[in-house]
Amino acid sequence: MRNFRVALAQINVTVGDLESNTSKIIQNMSSARDSGCDLVVFPELAVTGYPPEDLLLKSHFLQDNLRCAERIIQESANIAVVFGFVDYDVDTFNAAIFASDGKLVDTYRKIYLPNYGVFDEERYFRAGQKISVYEINGSKIAINICEDIWQPTGPLVIQREAGAELIVNINGSPFHRNKRSVTDKMLSTRAADNGVFISYVNMIGGQDELVFDGSSAIYDFNGSKVNEAKKFQEDLLITDIDLEAAQNSRLHDLRTRKRASVEFPYQDDLELIQVPKFSKKVVPPKISIRKTEAYDELDEIYNALKLGTRDYVIKCGFQKALIALSGGIDSSLVAAIAVDALGKDNVLGVAMPSRYSSKGSIDDAKKLSDNLQIKLLNIPIESMFTQFLKSLSEHFDSSKDSSMAEENLQSRIRGTLMMALSNQFGWIVLTTGNKSEMGTGYATIYGDMAGGFAVIKDVPKLMVYDLCDHINTKSGLELIPKEIINKPPSAELRPNQRDDDNLPPYSLLDPILEAYIEQDKSLNSIEELGFSREDISKVVSLVDTSEYKRRQSPPGIKITSRSFGRDRRMPIANRYKNIFN
Amino acid sequence: MRNFRVALAQINVTVGDLESNTSKIIQNMSSARDSGCDLVVFPELAVTGYPPEDLLLKSHFLQDNLRCAERIIQESANIAVVFGFVDYDVDTFNAAIFASDGKLVDTYRKIYLPNYGVFDEERYFRAGQKISVYEINGSKIAINICEDIWQPTGPLVIQREAGAELIVNINGSPFHRNKRSVTDKMLSTRAADNGVFISYVNMIGGQDELVFDGSSAIYDFNGSKVNEAKKFQEDLLITDIDLEAAQNSRLHDLRTRKRASVEFPYQDDLELIQVPKFSKKVVPPKISIRKTEAYDELDEIYNALKLGTRDYVIKCGFQKALIALSGGIDSSLVAAIAVDALGKDNVLGVAMPSRYSSKGSIDDAKKLSDNLQIKLLNIPIESMFTQFLKSLSEHFDSSKDSSMAEENLQSRIRGTLMMALSNQFGWIVLTTGNKSEMGTGYATIYGDMAGGFAVIKDVPKLMVYDLCDHINTKSGLELIPKEIINKPPSAELRPNQRDDDNLPPYSLLDPILEAYIEQDKSLNSIEELGFSREDISKVVSLVDTSEYKRRQSPPGIKITSRSFGRDRRMPIANRYKNIFN
Repeated sequence: MRNFRVALAQINVTVGDLESNTSKIIQNMSSARDSGCDLVVFPELAVTGYPPEDLLLKSHFLQDNLRCAERIIQESANIAVVFGFVDYDVDTFNAAIFASDGKLVDTYRKIYLPNYGVFDEERYFRAGQKISVYEINGSKIAINICEDIWQPTGPLVIQREAGAELIVNINGSPFHRNKRSVTDKMLSTRAADNGVFISYVNMIGGQDELVFDGSSAIYDFNGSKVNEAKKFQEDLLITDIDLEAAQNSRLHDLRTRKRASVEFPYQDDLELIQVPKFSKKVVPPKISIRKTEAYDELDEIYNALKLGTRDYVIKCGFQKALIALSGGIDSSLVAAIAVDALGKDNVLGVAMPSRYSSKGSIDDAKKLSDNLQIKLLNIPIESMFTQFLKSLSEHFDSSKDSSMAEENLQSRIRGTLMMALSNQFGWIVLTTGNKSEMGTGYATIYGDMAGGFAVIKDVPKLMVYDLCDHINTKSGLELIPKEIINKPPSAELRPNQRDDDNLPPYSLLDPILEAYIEQDKSLNSIEELGFSREDISKVVSLVDTSEYKRRQSPPGIKITSRSFGRDRRMPIANRYKNIFN
Repeated sequence: MRNFRVALAQINVTVGDLESNTSKIIQNMSSARDSGCDLVVFPELAVTGYPPEDLLLKSHFLQDNLRCAERIIQESANIAVVFGFVDYDVDTFNAAIFASDGKLVDTYRKIYLPNYGVFDEERYFRAGQKISVYEINGSKIAINICEDIWQPTGPLVIQREAGAELIVNINGSPFHRNKRSVTDKMLSTRAADNGVFISYVNMIGGQDELVFDGSSAIYDFNGSKVNEAKKFQEDLLITDIDLEAAQNSRLHDLRTRKRASVEFPYQDDLELIQVPKFSKKVVPPKISIRKTEAYDELDEIYNALKLGTRDYVIKCGFQKALIALSGGIDSSLVAAIAVDALGKDNVLGVAMPSRYSSKGSIDDAKKLSDNLQIKLLNIPIESMFTQFLKSLSEHFDSSKDSSMAEENLQSRIRGTLMMALSNQFGWIVLTTGNKSEMGTGYATIYGDMAGGFAVIKDVPKLMVYDLCDHINTKSGLELIPKEIINKPPSAELRPNQRDDDNLPPYSLLDPILEAYIEQDKSLNSIEELGFSREDISKVVSLVDTSEYKRRQSPPGIKITSRSFGRDRRMPIANRYKNIFN
């Protein structure tokens, strides 16, 4: 038995807030030291926050980040630490410092740079080449970064061949639904394939469109998860692992299947670095074994939305949020999330009924705000609507249908009111459009799309219902009134309007959108899923012609495998038409 | 003398419009054939348009592109052709087909993939590895793509070593000011360095934020430009070049400085491909020698704005545009550009005076529309403004200053009116904010920022003046009235407001913005340029806190080395503060 105590510091850092991020790292390092840890590990780019995007083009930003890294190294007395930072001399690298007892031991530079989906790492970083293994107090550990471990033949294999018993993999890995179970399987497989412990540490928190879910964990050399951090919360996960057992397990190679060697470009440069011994505090094993929680997709999504909302609002310097409440299900969901994220005193509802608003809707908005215990302002828009129609009437071409102009007008009057309140109060406006609306352009640009953050922009309508049910079930109350859940969706911008006047029913719309947007399927392939050509053509045409709206929409939280925003980069001027054949 | 007749087909393609792009290629190929050309060359990704962005993630799009490429090959009887397309089997490549006399000869795959600035090519393409040289009718030519030739030790050198006499370099190279002279010097140097002819072909046209300026040209083995296509216009540039002279010039290696060899990863795979002889039409040398135009920065920028506006409007399916005319210089410039781009009957001005609009401004807007011969609607906003104030008054906190809310309100009423007219007429709204405003956030989101395309979004205020002078000088008329040019800039949202109440004078603001945004300078470095700490701090703080507005702004034409949009990817939640030290 050769015990090694490792702490995974799953922290919430803020992009650009170098000082606070550094203080948080030093503070957690100190807690880990007091708990007698050999090693404490922080996420990818913990110093700068992830992703720092074009801040990385500023040399003064890179220099400031180096100064913070230096401070962390100096504070690492009597412990070893791994943390992410930007290595910068002539080139710029996504890198991890390995320091021990106040001294820099080595810098590892990420080898595989993701440049797909939301990732732009080839834009900023040069790829690393050097691989090391560190011998620390008789144990052999090695570091790699995020994407590196997704490569089955990546640095991990070379590190194992050089004797590493524990692989420290640091991450800034954004959440989307179903991703965690894939990551979990992959890490378990990598650990078993290579007969090593893997400590996977991920950050938590929201950053613009991204949410990091944490879910840091330790896997043993058989691929079993031995400990797991909280989800969507900061955590310092301390675990004792027996690295001798890992070493012994390498006899596996003799007993059963021999592990194949791989050729790796940089393996000849591999360095085995001896870390000078340091004395650490001897503390009884007061380690934190967390029960692995069952996987609940809806609950994860809900928590992602809550954390993403809280962090965007707070990290952008706001405390309070305004939400236009129509009495519909989307705005109700957003209000419930916002109240949970920010507190009821920090959320204000605004009802802006028009001549087309039903009595039910106004009552429903009231009931919802009562349930959530938030204040509700009521500002009828009729007087402004009338004035606009009067001013525009002489300029409108009476031979043309003006119904779309009039519908959008109501929505834009509401957007203007919300922004006026925002300007006067200094509160952020949260918008309430869902992914089905954003996908089809069934939303008014500068109207209901006006605001700072689009909470459920990546949530399809059917999932909006599921989340409302989830909230009601979890709360044990009918927090979101059943009247709101049960009524047919309507924008209420003309008499007796219903969403399905203009759109296929959501039970058809949502899967078509998913096939087209998330899976890039052709029209023919979507037809093979069992949808009608008519429905497919309609939906695809709506998606294609509403790109300009999405380009001007506020950011929102990514929860699917492809969200609108950095994740999906479509041209606006685009005449491509896929056709059935 | 071994004459080779080459046609550079500088065409305007549309992203996604595979059919039209293919027809245009076939048509130009036919013209080149009729002119007795040995070879006709088309731009990078001519089949798909550039950049196709995430269309490249759709396999049906890639397949359609392959079918178009096949058609072009089949149509290449009695001529050789080089054109850009997406090569796609298992992987996806930015590639060029070399076909001759109806048959595919070879495919070249771009080796160096730009992934900086507006470019995302690592997101989509795998890098090519194979280099070839083609022997065609006794002459040796080779192909590479755009970025490849920017590498002094790139494929060009290996191609020269294998005997290439003419290098065909195809491009989708977007315009920004001063770029062309850099490209010109580079191409001239590459040609002289390697003793080869270079035919550089670039596309023209606007695509979302980008404008391609054309400027296709041929350089001889001494680095002299022997012929040059028109700028910002389609062109088929036909030139006779003596490739024997290029071959003879290689004796240079013996007479003077010996050219160094380079090691290149893929050089051992180099293939010399014999192209079967084909008969071509014998036509007397009716070639098109264009006079190289003098370089005029302002005129280039003006033409970029004009072409970018025309193409965005037309390629998005509009014919007509609406512009809010305040009587200020920005909206006047945009109107002048739009009239030149779309025609006076396709541009409608809208004046929306408020209680704070000066008599002068209203008269100036009228005078401008008269000069431009466009119709001007007049819709006073007072009645709507009053209604909004009335509806909001009871909700406003009277202890707080509501002036910002009220200023923005006026702007948003105007935005709402513009969008209502847009909805009813089916015309696009062009916005009028300049780069100084976009940089500092001196603009109202959903107000004056509301619209489909932001024509001068990348034009700093001082350049707005220069462009107005340029227009007046070129027209020989006072097209933009001198009253508009001479009055102090004002948003006219409160009594006697002037821009310099809130902003440093533009003569200070613009260079500070350029240093901070285009050059990523630190506060200290900007101070070293001679600006005061107070002005620098103010400007930098305005830039940093207005990121959220820019994220929701309409696209606009890139004319500087760094524009807002794809070119500059800043986080919104960002607490980085550079400080003086």
